[in-house]
Amino acid sequence: MSGSLTVIGLGPGNAAQVTPEALAAIEAGEDFFGYGPYVDRLNLRDDQRRHASDNREEISRAEAALMLAAKGGRVCVVSGGDAGVFAMAAAVCEAIEAGPAEWREIHFSVVPGITAMLAVAARVGAPLGHDFCAISLSDNLKPWELIEKRLIAAAEAGFVMAFYNPVSKARPHQLSRAFDVLRAHLPGSVTVVFGRAAGRPDERMRIEPLSNAHSDMADMATCIIVGSTETRLIERPGQAPLVYSPRSAGKI
Amino acid sequence: MSGSLTVIGLGPGNAAQVTPEALAAIEAGEDFFGYGPYVDRLNLRDDQRRHASDNREEISRAEAALMLAAKGGRVCVVSGGDAGVFAMAAAVCEAIEAGPAEWREIHFSVVPGITAMLAVAARVGAPLGHDFCAISLSDNLKPWELIEKRLIAAAEAGFVMAFYNPVSKARPHQLSRAFDVLRAHLPGSVTVVFGRAAGRPDERMRIEPLSNAHSDMADMATCIIVGSTETRLIERPGQAPLVYSPRSAGKI
Repeated sequence: MSGSLTVIGLGPGNAAQVTPEALAAIEAGEDFFGYGPYVDRLNLRDDQRRHASDNREEISRAEAALMLAAKGGRVCVVSGGDAGVFAMAAAVCEAIEAGPAEWREIHFSVVPGITAMLAVAARVGAPLGHDFCAISLSDNLKPWELIEKRLIAAAEAGFVMAFYNPVSKARPHQLSRAFDVLRAHLPGSVTVVFGRAAGRPDERMRIEPLSNAHSDMADMATCIIVGSTETRLIERPGQAPLVYSPRSAGKI
Repeated sequence: MSGSLTVIGLGPGNAAQVTPEALAAIEAGEDFFGYGPYVDRLNLRDDQRRHASDNREEISRAEAALMLAAKGGRVCVVSGGDAGVFAMAAAVCEAIEAGPAEWREIHFSVVPGITAMLAVAARVGAPLGHDFCAISLSDNLKPWELIEKRLIAAAEAGFVMAFYNPVSKARPHQLSRAFDVLRAHLPGSVTVVFGRAAGRPDERMRIEPLSNAHSDMADMATCIIVGSTETRLIERPGQAPLVYSPRSAGKI
């Protein structure tokens, strides 16, 4: 008898941004898999089991969760942000496709969450107010040339961009290279938002022109939003400036 | 004395996807502006005032809300989905920039929400599991040529795409044209998800290959996700297929 596997997005880290749907799914779960800091966010009961693992073990975590669900368990896999945006939902799908036929009988569901770029955008105004894209800057799972191709395509077509996984200890140079690529295709006046830990006590929002953007301004907890040439900055007395992308674009 | 203006994202329409942060902001508000069906979702108290308006009146709605906030009111503007994704946050910022200096003194904030593409993606698997973009197909506020340019750029760079505002009575032909443009740049086997009313009682998810995608499959309540050539379909016995985009992309 197959059980269930639910991948749950916990939002950026502020309890007020966790949906009731996510809380209900946690309440109904028996076993919880995830990267340690995400599992730590759960207030589990004594009868609920915790299976925390390292950040890099996505496929083995997915397989362990699926094995338990195939035995009839009510299994949850938790992710920060949205479960489907550079997170565990895709890893579980990969494992289902590559795994035994019985894994396809598991009742699989995904609970969406507030993904980092939405939380960061909300804190500074509305930089994602028009067409935008989301790009992971990690070249662990795709060639760097493909990332550059996407950066250039997005810049030339006027998309606002949100960068996930901008830097890590193993990848200190990618973000610098990304800014260099963008500086060759966009004016230096384009607004860049470094949104760190949105909605958490250690939140920090920093706004810089692209000409001044530097990889030191980001860490692993940062989501970066690069505006388009249409993105605007509104200065305000005694308050941080607002960054927004108008609903209209181009000449019409 | 300036008041406050909070733009609140109510999510796709399922009460279980409204965040506690959004509920707290509604609780604290005095006046509520928004498109009628979104204002109708609120359970307002007798002392809270309702200012519903038509879908097309975004700037006049933003101005009315700002005028009231400038007089000291605690004003809320509500949007479906996320407030910053093709929604009211950008319209309010536009009005602030164009309006009197005193509007810049208003305490302005945005409460993020679950945007349609995340809710739709969650219902079918993880189609946004890798780099993706969001494009409004409405040419009310940008030239159609720019939309085509973005569609082609996204297709050629391998982005998954989410389409907002795919059709309306005033714009019946844009979605057909968008599919024709994509068919010239992507294989017909690419997966297209028509996600209607995700999380609501009248939800309907439909999965078609691009070769078969037709504008009749969408209405105003539909968010469309067009996969990349990497996007996979997992057939399952007795359950709808899963659609997902692997975490890896390209040759590495």
